[in-house]
Amino acid sequence: MTREVQPRSATRLDSYVDRYAARTKGMTASEIRALFAVASRPEVVSLAGGMPNISGLPLDVVGGAIYDLVRTNGPAAMQYGSGQGDPTLRDQICDVMRLEGIDAHPDDVVVTVGSQQAVDLVTRIFCDPGDVVICEAPSYVGALGVFRAYQADVVHAEMDEHGLVPDALRQAIAAVRASGRRIKFLYTIPNYHNPAGVSMAPQRRAEVLEICREADILILEDNPYGLLGFDDEPHRALRADEAEGVIYLGSFSKTFAPGFRVGWALAPHAVREKLVLAQESATLCPPSFSQMAVSSYLANHDWQGQVKQFREMYRERRDAMISALEDLMPAGARWNVPDGGFYVWLTLPHGLDAKAMLPRAVTARVAYVPGTAFFADGFGAQSMRLSYCYPTPERIREGVRRLVGVIEEELELRETFGTIAGEPHGSVERGYESPNTDLS
Amino acid sequence: MTREVQPRSATRLDSYVDRYAARTKGMTASEIRALFAVASRPEVVSLAGGMPNISGLPLDVVGGAIYDLVRTNGPAAMQYGSGQGDPTLRDQICDVMRLEGIDAHPDDVVVTVGSQQAVDLVTRIFCDPGDVVICEAPSYVGALGVFRAYQADVVHAEMDEHGLVPDALRQAIAAVRASGRRIKFLYTIPNYHNPAGVSMAPQRRAEVLEICREADILILEDNPYGLLGFDDEPHRALRADEAEGVIYLGSFSKTFAPGFRVGWALAPHAVREKLVLAQESATLCPPSFSQMAVSSYLANHDWQGQVKQFREMYRERRDAMISALEDLMPAGARWNVPDGGFYVWLTLPHGLDAKAMLPRAVTARVAYVPGTAFFADGFGAQSMRLSYCYPTPERIREGVRRLVGVIEEELELRETFGTIAGEPHGSVERGYESPNTDLS
Repeated sequence: MTREVQPRSATRLDSYVDRYAARTKGMTASEIRALFAVASRPEVVSLAGGMPNISGLPLDVVGGAIYDLVRTNGPAAMQYGSGQGDPTLRDQICDVMRLEGIDAHPDDVVVTVGSQQAVDLVTRIFCDPGDVVICEAPSYVGALGVFRAYQADVVHAEMDEHGLVPDALRQAIAAVRASGRRIKFLYTIPNYHNPAGVSMAPQRRAEVLEICREADILILEDNPYGLLGFDDEPHRALRADEAEGVIYLGSFSKTFAPGFRVGWALAPHAVREKLVLAQESATLCPPSFSQMAVSSYLANHDWQGQVKQFREMYRERRDAMISALEDLMPAGARWNVPDGGFYVWLTLPHGLDAKAMLPRAVTARVAYVPGTAFFADGFGAQSMRLSYCYPTPERIREGVRRLVGVIEEELELRETFGTIAGEPHGSVERGYESPNTDLS
Repeated sequence: MTREVQPRSATRLDSYVDRYAARTKGMTASEIRALFAVASRPEVVSLAGGMPNISGLPLDVVGGAIYDLVRTNGPAAMQYGSGQGDPTLRDQICDVMRLEGIDAHPDDVVVTVGSQQAVDLVTRIFCDPGDVVICEAPSYVGALGVFRAYQADVVHAEMDEHGLVPDALRQAIAAVRASGRRIKFLYTIPNYHNPAGVSMAPQRRAEVLEICREADILILEDNPYGLLGFDDEPHRALRADEAEGVIYLGSFSKTFAPGFRVGWALAPHAVREKLVLAQESATLCPPSFSQMAVSSYLANHDWQGQVKQFREMYRERRDAMISALEDLMPAGARWNVPDGGFYVWLTLPHGLDAKAMLPRAVTARVAYVPGTAFFADGFGAQSMRLSYCYPTPERIREGVRRLVGVIEEELELRETFGTIAGEPHGSVERGYESPNTDLS
């Protein structure tokens, strides 16, 4: 079929530019987004994306389970469902959370369109413009985007190799309150942090819970990677020790597959009621078909055995990345060794700027996400997130080799001409003391 | 498995009550929602819901198409996709819209989680608190909920049997502008209106477009029922004659099945870019699996033949409802005869209040939605929405019989005691002149 309408130029004027809501000014294309177009070219080794590698999923099992679902329960799977989500799936979600020590009732679970939508709905019901969300430094780029879209202010609190630093949290709370602003919640990713790659130590968890209890601050615990540890039993969730003060977010995107967009929020009862109203307003209900497909997969397949396979695959890739970094990286670069999840946080030798360097890296056919994407305040230019979840071990090593080539060129330029891209930006404006972007 | 946590009482205090965002005050359970629990009991004939009847869908065809999808394209269907939606599906969506005279490019389409999410995203990018959305009187309850959740003010403009009344639109625009407020868009359902059951006449369409062009007002054209006309070719969309000033919303919920939650927005290019950013913030991307399942169904099945079957089924049910109303309703009740879609708008004899009468109707085992649900200003108490989409013709007739019994009791009470439930509420506060809730 011919299309008579031509694609329009992206550069023409936007006749609606004066009519958007104030919040829309905060909706800008993220640094990750701009990268996707380039990084998806086959010749580029992308260490940028956070796509899980689902090639190990048994397609015949999944296809068969969904075929049976349509044949036996198609009219329900294809109909509108409850705004809160499918009751059977919510029951299974409680079984999943039990692996992290959470004892919950399915009545307090709300199914969402991926856990991204859970972040959106929680922010929607809590945040007025100018309210403050405390986030780790660095924090998940997708959550920062949500907070910005609701015109909430992000205040970062430092992390180290044991996760969020309690004293930094105390200082952030005190500073925000001294400024007269309201803190709506602490957003934290305790396990296999995106992008920092670290987990919150057990003693830290107790301390963070205690600080938030005392300061009467709600915790938003985002946990997409909790079952993807390489060595240990799953860490105990913050929610396991505090039911009233924590909203817990989970997802099947990394333990099963992201294309169904099934995540959830577990919330105190009154908050749960608001979340359901927000969900009904946003979508009427999450997709019945997706939910019942996930439910059917969980019921008919050894999903925990599958997660074990995923963990082994990701560990092998983590090993490939770490050994390549150890073999090839020049002195002065520092990184952490994650014990689960998808990410390594790498800090460049002093004076290098990961954001400024990115175009040269892409020219050298390797992509990463500059650290600035993970800060609301421009910090992080000396760092980058490297993900090992998607490429093969061979490609990971090749990607690191290319990256090292670019870094070495930058170092040579720096020696020849002095600082090449200026000091990392944002180092003056940042709202916290000495954030540690070296998490190793 | 035993559950050690008890379900909590819904009546306990909400310890978060002082912390919600201002917008959350506008999120309250709708009248439709409160009805669902009652109306879903099997002994109740529900003329309340808007669920399409999808029992005619060929489950073997759908199941087979999805099985093939998983086997041949599973890794893509289960992976993250584009925030804008699947390119193949967006191409097919353009073919669907062509049936209503729309010549569009897939690059201007954004896939959403049902068209409900499209209403949410459009409102998100355009409406600051206090901005005005002009809506028909009555209007879709789910859209009114979105506008309330974004703290936009709804101003109604009268409809009659030919749809939105141009003079009422002119007056609403003038009144809002005189008050110094900003109009962000006109929200309209031109075809087989929910809940009014009427379609906008062709001459009206040209006039409404001209008024909005002249006043520089964006039109949000919501069209879930456009292909479900009983007699005619599909009406020509407003978007077919105005590309820059109209955002068009479509859905597969009524032409295929709602459980996939696949709808879309077709928007001017610059607006489309904002919608994609809003979608990425809200969900990262709409569900790949749902989109590819719908795409596969469209490609491998005579979906237009299926829609023809749906139309014949709904016409039979419309006939059953209209003939029952004609046979049984007492003098003074008035209703329209829809030529498509799911709904009849019925206005009770003078002095009766549909909202006050509802508990008695449910006791008599019939449910409907009181007209007040479809007004932002409390108007509509004398009217109700009756839907004929889901029950069988026999059940529809039985439902009308029960409803007539309740109305006759009310009339008797009124004769004996005078007005029983007060005059319809809201008749003083409404913000427009003489809205016509009698659309017949």
